[in-house]
Amino acid sequence: MSLVTKPRVMFPEHSVNQERMIEVLQDLFPYHPKWDTVERMIRNTEVDNRNLLSPIDQVVTHPGFEFRNKIYKDQGLKMATEVTQQVLKDNKMEPKDIDLLIVVSCTGFLMPSLTSYLISDLNFRPNTKQLPVVQLGCAAGAWALNRAHEYLKAFQDHNVLLISVEFSSLLFQPTDQKISSLISNCLFGDAVSGCIIKGTPEDGDEGYMIEGVDSYLKKDSDHYIKYDVKSTGFHFGLDKEVMHSIKDVAPIMKNFIENSYEKNVNNLDFHVFHTGGRKILDELVSNLDLDENNVMNSRDSLKNHGNIASGVVLDVLNKEFTLNTRKSGDQGMLAAFGPGFTAEINRGTWIKN
Amino acid sequence: MSLVTKPRVMFPEHSVNQERMIEVLQDLFPYHPKWDTVERMIRNTEVDNRNLLSPIDQVVTHPGFEFRNKIYKDQGLKMATEVTQQVLKDNKMEPKDIDLLIVVSCTGFLMPSLTSYLISDLNFRPNTKQLPVVQLGCAAGAWALNRAHEYLKAFQDHNVLLISVEFSSLLFQPTDQKISSLISNCLFGDAVSGCIIKGTPEDGDEGYMIEGVDSYLKKDSDHYIKYDVKSTGFHFGLDKEVMHSIKDVAPIMKNFIENSYEKNVNNLDFHVFHTGGRKILDELVSNLDLDENNVMNSRDSLKNHGNIASGVVLDVLNKEFTLNTRKSGDQGMLAAFGPGFTAEINRGTWIKN
Repeated sequence: MSLVTKPRVMFPEHSVNQERMIEVLQDLFPYHPKWDTVERMIRNTEVDNRNLLSPIDQVVTHPGFEFRNKIYKDQGLKMATEVTQQVLKDNKMEPKDIDLLIVVSCTGFLMPSLTSYLISDLNFRPNTKQLPVVQLGCAAGAWALNRAHEYLKAFQDHNVLLISVEFSSLLFQPTDQKISSLISNCLFGDAVSGCIIKGTPEDGDEGYMIEGVDSYLKKDSDHYIKYDVKSTGFHFGLDKEVMHSIKDVAPIMKNFIENSYEKNVNNLDFHVFHTGGRKILDELVSNLDLDENNVMNSRDSLKNHGNIASGVVLDVLNKEFTLNTRKSGDQGMLAAFGPGFTAEINRGTWIKN
Repeated sequence: MSLVTKPRVMFPEHSVNQERMIEVLQDLFPYHPKWDTVERMIRNTEVDNRNLLSPIDQVVTHPGFEFRNKIYKDQGLKMATEVTQQVLKDNKMEPKDIDLLIVVSCTGFLMPSLTSYLISDLNFRPNTKQLPVVQLGCAAGAWALNRAHEYLKAFQDHNVLLISVEFSSLLFQPTDQKISSLISNCLFGDAVSGCIIKGTPEDGDEGYMIEGVDSYLKKDSDHYIKYDVKSTGFHFGLDKEVMHSIKDVAPIMKNFIENSYEKNVNNLDFHVFHTGGRKILDELVSNLDLDENNVMNSRDSLKNHGNIASGVVLDVLNKEFTLNTRKSGDQGMLAAFGPGFTAEINRGTWIKN
């Protein structure tokens, strides 16, 4: 048993809308030979707005990998601290109540990791277990929920805190002029999010009770989503072949539901999907025979915040709480996709105690 | 129940001894104002030999972060593949028998991670779970054994493969002339190691059966062991205060044993310690009232291979197998230390089925 309680999602104060972003890129690359294609594709992303750590004019300069990683540490720790305090308060918990701290984040690199800083600064128990993960990209949020579920299977009286720290704006690379890079610059947004996963639900708890998990890696697809690691930091690379990966993972998602629940994936009451991009959602709708309603929350998240990487599933899940339309016993699934190509999937039941 | 079976440790072909290393550094820094101290401290490390990915003359040049990370990927994947094939063969297993693949490595950064490449290239099951960890430094080997133990508590018929990939020579920074940096340049060695941890031992199995785990983070000690992340890559930093951390963790290690076994830590039959350096081992001997015999294998590993980071505990554990002096029922402990400051500790019993 593992109950995912209401997430908190914190967005930094700055923002940029699609029109302004098109202007900014046009100023940066006035003679881009494929500009018409770029502009058309940006408009097709259906990302209206994204929050950013800094004003957009600062985002598009590159002050160096070292400086950016310092911003990552300072702002990451600051916002992760606030989100941690919020979810602890929401759950009437203190740091000592947390047994395992998972921090997922693919947009900076620290050693010691953010898990260490949080345990030290916020006075978690010195024996709090750490699980810091950098290399799983956008799949890391769902991945962390899956690992938390497995951990709580062994330790039913424990609690897991999951924090996602994603500042994709710190990965803007002014030298990357490929079409896919320019589109990515308009797709990803910044956010820090978190939630507590409880091994044993209590009276009054509401949340998503995970009942099963699955993982999938597609062979020979390492080039779909990747970083090139350079002196200028991480350079995000996306191959358009990634769109075809949903065709491969959809049957796995279908079987995963049909083999456990007496319904098809499109009959589930709720669907929490990572918003890799508009086309990924379109492919999910098409390959899983979904109604548009099933992906409405995911599309909303994409439209208002862009792809906030590992935090997307927490933002979309959070909508299930705030919309307050879920009733006890509703069945649903959650899935995210990332580099590998990897999918992390789980299924569960909504509970209101 | 979780049985750590015989590890494999693979060292790259090149090597450098202490005398040659002193010559190399003297050539690089002919006017170092503290050279006498540096040389004395290097001799005090008691590291006679270290294996390296490249000849020492290449190690001390810096071909750029990007190039180094490419070497990391190519050589890491090559050696991790070989070690994986060896431990699978040793255990009469095939890739399909592995349920969770943990790769720990703090000397390079890849996305997708080595877990993805190994699953794809070696035909592991597509649903093999991945756990790639970069940010736990030298504590990561013991950390991974602890997390494997917890995972197998929930899935007793599963098997975990742990691979450690550490190429510290790729972190040589010619611009870092601090005494602590020059000593570190003579302390760390390259190696790739691995082992399989089984949820259920079978007839004929020999190994270290983990029975309990513990973790410890010392508050406000993030500066003890750290990376500065720069355009030139990861710059290792070590504060001499780290030596005092053993005084803090020793009582935890003592209680961890005394509360579970009817003996003191110094009466255990075997001790597998991370060789952070000679002084860390001296502090363990002094603070835990150990006989020199208890740390002999750790000192041997340090002397012959230097500190191979997360792989040290696998190298020292491997000696318990190859020396063949352990008998069924022997009780022991394993501990490693890393950035945070973090300690990961476990205890268990030797079994020969």
